[in-house]
Amino acid sequence: MSGRAADDRSVADKLFAIADAFATGEDLSLSEIAARARLPLSTAHRLVAEWVAWGGLVRGDDGRYRLGLKLWRLGARQPTARRLRSAALPYLEDLLESTREHVHLAVRDGLGAIYLERLSGRDAVPVISDVGSRLPLHATGVGLVLLAHAPPEVLGEVLASHPRKYLPNTLTEERELRIRLAEIRSIGISTAVEELTPGAFSVAAPVRDASGEVVAAVSIIAHVERVSEPQFALGVRMAARGVSTALGWRP
Amino acid sequence: MSGRAADDRSVADKLFAIADAFATGEDLSLSEIAARARLPLSTAHRLVAEWVAWGGLVRGDDGRYRLGLKLWRLGARQPTARRLRSAALPYLEDLLESTREHVHLAVRDGLGAIYLERLSGRDAVPVISDVGSRLPLHATGVGLVLLAHAPPEVLGEVLASHPRKYLPNTLTEERELRIRLAEIRSIGISTAVEELTPGAFSVAAPVRDASGEVVAAVSIIAHVERVSEPQFALGVRMAARGVSTALGWRP
Repeated sequence: MSGRAADDRSVADKLFAIADAFATGEDLSLSEIAARARLPLSTAHRLVAEWVAWGGLVRGDDGRYRLGLKLWRLGARQPTARRLRSAALPYLEDLLESTREHVHLAVRDGLGAIYLERLSGRDAVPVISDVGSRLPLHATGVGLVLLAHAPPEVLGEVLASHPRKYLPNTLTEERELRIRLAEIRSIGISTAVEELTPGAFSVAAPVRDASGEVVAAVSIIAHVERVSEPQFALGVRMAARGVSTALGWRP
Repeated sequence: MSGRAADDRSVADKLFAIADAFATGEDLSLSEIAARARLPLSTAHRLVAEWVAWGGLVRGDDGRYRLGLKLWRLGARQPTARRLRSAALPYLEDLLESTREHVHLAVRDGLGAIYLERLSGRDAVPVISDVGSRLPLHATGVGLVLLAHAPPEVLGEVLASHPRKYLPNTLTEERELRIRLAEIRSIGISTAVEELTPGAFSVAAPVRDASGEVVAAVSIIAHVERVSEPQFALGVRMAARGVSTALGWRP
């Protein structure tokens, strides 16, 4: 053991490090898992076998491992995602039918916006978000809406995290962000033009639950050429209002 | 320790038993978790804290625990569910638009059909399936399609499992099941009328991947009054064909 610090992580930590190795969704060989989880091959071998016995990982015919349907099923039971998705889907579908672009539902998780659902028209603009993606609050339409309605200290944390200027339009300065967030609270929607993805703009609106609290955001991401078409703002407002009502919100 | 067998499960087994306690998606108190996972309260307390530290469980303001978004995100990366869902969604949406009932995508997992996706019209018939549900192969439209194309030993396992007769129309006898499965293989779709849910019928068709193997099934579940309308069979065939083509299948 000389020259090498003992690994004082618990068995649970090591098991979870193996799960984290699969965060990208790729198939991995045992040695790739061991490297990503920083485990000796023998430990990785033993703990991967525990995951496989439970069904959280599956070993393919090629000897590589992938996430198992058991894990997918457990995730599908997560109450926030399940409740919001189920309330939102009919409205997201209406919005998709009337726009044929990308329609999103997102929630705030710390300093990120997690995409719970995405429906896409066949010719929708290419974007980097996918279901399960976590994108920065300051650079996305849904993120700015969620940030506008988050506790005030969250903006401080975003600013302290040195928010990245992805494109010339991305807001990163405190003053401009404060003005933008106040505007979003005042007019009720956020329009973000080429702030994260070139060629795309998004319109987002807040979703409230029965308590009146903003619990999610709905957005459309569309080709920037369509930015002046009025149906996006109207459609997003109506969808967000529909989802809120389905969650018990009363104006 | 008298009168009580020692628990020789590994730490991993105990951690996974805690995860399994949340299979219904409910919020649970620590003592409910301990009871479901058959663990002493002190062990449950320590291992639940490990789950919370990782993010797989979250403790609410009321002291109860629920599945965390971390687990939902990991599940969303499961390659089979992700690939099939992404290929299928545009076709499921088309099918929903033209029928306004329930549209499903399912895969076989052992002796069950797991629902990977469900889109529903607002006035669709009440059904028990939900995303993540696992329903019996012999009593559902998608299940019969998946069984018809499964390795022959799977039918043997279904019969050996004493399949339940949910409703008078549910097939449970070997002879009638064999005839039905041959018919499904021959005509390419399965129509199941009130075999699991009173008042509902389903039409299902197989989805093939590039190798020609049946990897999933698409179905509609609709009000039984609509059983003679021709668009269901046509729509399901077209959707299944569209998804198969998106997966690389060539006739």
